[in-house]
Amino acid sequence: MAPSVEDSNNNTAAAAIGGGVENGTPPPEKSRVTVVGSGNWGSVAAKLIASNTLKLNSFHDEVRMWVFEETLPTGEKLSEVINRTNENVKYLPGIKLGKNVIADPNLENAVKDANMLVFVTPHQFMEGICKRIVGKIRKDAEAISLIKGMEVKKEGPCMISSLISEQLGINCCVLMGANIANEIAVEKFSEATVGYRKSKDIAEKWVQLFNISYFNVSAVQDVEGVELCGTLKNVVAIAAGLVDGLEMGNNTKAAIMRIGLREMKAFSKLLFPSVKDSTFFESCGVADLITTCLGGRNRKCAEAFARNGGKRSFDELEAEMLQGQKLQGVSTAKEVYEVLRHRGWLELFPLFSTVHEICIGRLPPTAIVEYSEHTPKFSLVGGSNQFF
Amino acid sequence: MAPSVEDSNNNTAAAAIGGGVENGTPPPEKSRVTVVGSGNWGSVAAKLIASNTLKLNSFHDEVRMWVFEETLPTGEKLSEVINRTNENVKYLPGIKLGKNVIADPNLENAVKDANMLVFVTPHQFMEGICKRIVGKIRKDAEAISLIKGMEVKKEGPCMISSLISEQLGINCCVLMGANIANEIAVEKFSEATVGYRKSKDIAEKWVQLFNISYFNVSAVQDVEGVELCGTLKNVVAIAAGLVDGLEMGNNTKAAIMRIGLREMKAFSKLLFPSVKDSTFFESCGVADLITTCLGGRNRKCAEAFARNGGKRSFDELEAEMLQGQKLQGVSTAKEVYEVLRHRGWLELFPLFSTVHEICIGRLPPTAIVEYSEHTPKFSLVGGSNQFF
Repeated sequence: MAPSVEDSNNNTAAAAIGGGVENGTPPPEKSRVTVVGSGNWGSVAAKLIASNTLKLNSFHDEVRMWVFEETLPTGEKLSEVINRTNENVKYLPGIKLGKNVIADPNLENAVKDANMLVFVTPHQFMEGICKRIVGKIRKDAEAISLIKGMEVKKEGPCMISSLISEQLGINCCVLMGANIANEIAVEKFSEATVGYRKSKDIAEKWVQLFNISYFNVSAVQDVEGVELCGTLKNVVAIAAGLVDGLEMGNNTKAAIMRIGLREMKAFSKLLFPSVKDSTFFESCGVADLITTCLGGRNRKCAEAFARNGGKRSFDELEAEMLQGQKLQGVSTAKEVYEVLRHRGWLELFPLFSTVHEICIGRLPPTAIVEYSEHTPKFSLVGGSNQFF
Repeated sequence: MAPSVEDSNNNTAAAAIGGGVENGTPPPEKSRVTVVGSGNWGSVAAKLIASNTLKLNSFHDEVRMWVFEETLPTGEKLSEVINRTNENVKYLPGIKLGKNVIADPNLENAVKDANMLVFVTPHQFMEGICKRIVGKIRKDAEAISLIKGMEVKKEGPCMISSLISEQLGINCCVLMGANIANEIAVEKFSEATVGYRKSKDIAEKWVQLFNISYFNVSAVQDVEGVELCGTLKNVVAIAAGLVDGLEMGNNTKAAIMRIGLREMKAFSKLLFPSVKDSTFFESCGVADLITTCLGGRNRKCAEAFARNGGKRSFDELEAEMLQGQKLQGVSTAKEVYEVLRHRGWLELFPLFSTVHEICIGRLPPTAIVEYSEHTPKFSLVGGSNQFF
C-alpha cells in the first residue's frame, strides 16, 4: 500500500479565507490531484504540481502518481524506490520530486479519490487505461492530457482528449508547449499552453496547478488547436531533420518549418473549424515547433535517415538510436496521410504527404524540398483559402 | 560609361502576344529594372531578377545595378570588374550574376530610365540617396525596398519604404524573408514575402520579377507588417543569442523567440493598426525570425556578449567579429526603446526593453530570462489585449 501525505495547510486558515463555518457555508473541498503516468515528462509534471499544491490552499498537498510497476536491476520495485528516495531513479534520475509525491503502482487506487486527473502516458496505452478505470473515478473529476499523438479510426481522427472525455465521461483539457522534460526538471525557463473547451474556471485551476516562476502557463479556449499542435509538430520535425541531413542550410530549414506550421494550421482548421489562428502563436504552436526542430529525436533520426540517402529504414535507425523509444513523427505522418487520402486533401498538403512518402521509402529524402517548392499558392487552393 | 544589353526577346513576338500594332494599340512598354545597391544581398537580388527578365517578355533583359564605386587592391574599379567578369568579386565572389546585369557607378544615370527601382543598401544611406535622385527618376516609377531598419525621428518611427515614398513621391513595396544571401546565391530553396499597399497588380509584377523555382515569393497587402518583421527580428535575435551564451537550452530559446514574435506583432499593430496577424506566419515573419535566431551576426555577437558576462561591449565585439559591419539589432533595439519610452509602453514590452538595457550595460545578460518571465498576461494588458 502506498503511503500518504498529511496536509500541511491549516484547514481553519483555508476556511477563513474561503468563507468558513462561521457564516454557515462549509469550506470548499480541496482538490486532489493524481498523475497517471511516471515516465520522464510525467515525473517532471508531478514535480511541478507537487511544488504548487504545497503552496495553494485549494489543493491537498499530496500528489499521487500512478507508476507502471517495474522491477529494477537491484531487485527493488520502482514505486518503492520512488517513495523511499523521492526520485524516479529510472526515468528522471537526480531530481527530487517533492516529498508529497506518492508513487502508487495500483492504477484504480491511484485515481479513485482524485478530482483532478493528469494523463501523461505513451498515447497507445490510453485506450487500455481508460477501459481499466471507467466507472472507478469520481463523477466530478476533471482531466488534462499531456499526451501527444492521435488515433486514426475509420470514422476519422480521434484526439486523445476526446478519447478520455468519451470513454470516461468527463471533461478533458490539454497542456502542450515547448517542453523538453529534462530542461524543465532543472528549472530552466519555459512556457506551456493549456487548451480548454468551455469552462475558463477549470482552465484557471490547471494553470494554477502547473504555473511556476520558470514555467509560464497560459490558457486558450481551443482544445483541438492546442492538441493538434503538439501532435503535428513531430511530422514537421521529420521534415526539418531531413533538411539538416541534406545540409541545405538555415534558410531552407526555416522555410520548411514555416510551410510545416502553415500545414499544421490548415489541417487543424479543416478538421475542426473552431481552431483559432492565434493558438499557433502560443507556446504549443511556434515555440514547441522550434524546440522540436532544433533538438528532439524525430529531427535527429530524420537527419541520420537523409545522411544515409534513405537506405537505412526509420525502424532500423530508431532501434539503433533511441533505445526502444518509438518515433512519434513517423507514425503521426502515417495517420495524417490516411486522413488526407481519405478526404482527398493530399495535394493541399505537400509537406505532410511527402514526409510520409519519404518515411516509407516511396520518395527519396531530397523530395522534401522539391515537393515543398510546390506549396499551393492561394490561387490554387480555391475555396480552402481561409485555412492557409 | 557603363555598357548596355540588347534585348533578346523579339519585340514583334511580344507585340503579337500583348495585342500588337495590327489592332491599333501600341505594344505595352517593357519595364526597366534598376537595382540600387550592390552589396551581398543586392548582388543576389540582381542575379535573381536578371534570370527572370531574360524569360519574361514584359521586362527589358538588362538589369542595371548601381555600384558605389571602389578601387580594388588590384587598382581596378569594382564596377569595371563586375562588367568584365560578371561577378561581384568583392561582395559575392564566385557567383555569376548573369550577363544582362550591368554595373553602373553613376547613380543618376543608373536610375533615370528605370520604372522599377529596387533599393537594397545599408539603411543609413537611404536618406542621402533619395536626396540625390529626387526629380531625376521617372514619374511613373515603382519602388521596392529590401532594406531592414527604421529611422526614429521626433515625430515617431519612419519606415524605409515610407522614406522612399515620401522623398521620391512614388509608391514603394517591400520584400523581406528568411533570406541569407549566400544560401540563395547557391540556389538553395527559400521563401520571401512582398508587402504591398494598394495595387495587387504591382505586387504581382514584383513577385514575377523575384520568384524562381528555388525562391518562392508570396505577396500580402501589409507593407508595414512585412517591413517591421524584417526590422524587429534583429532585436529578437539579440535575445536568442544571449540565451545561447547563457546555455539555457532549446526550451528557453524557443520561449524567448516566441515572446519576441509576440512583441513584434504587438508593437507593429500598436504603431500601425492595419497590420495583419497573418503576416507573421509568412516568410518575413516566423521563418525569417527562425533563420536569424539560428545563424546570423546579431545572434552570434550576443552569444559572445553573454559568454563574457557583458564585460566586453557590443562595440568591441562587433569590431572584433564583424570586420566593420554594424549590428543592426543593437541600433534597432535602441530605436524601439525610444518609441516605447516616448509612448509609455515600456512595461508592455519586457523583451524589447530588456534587450536594449542589456546592450547598454544597464542590466546583466541574465536579465533576458528574468524579465521575460514577467511577460504581461492578458489580464495585465487591459485595453491593449487585442494586440498581443
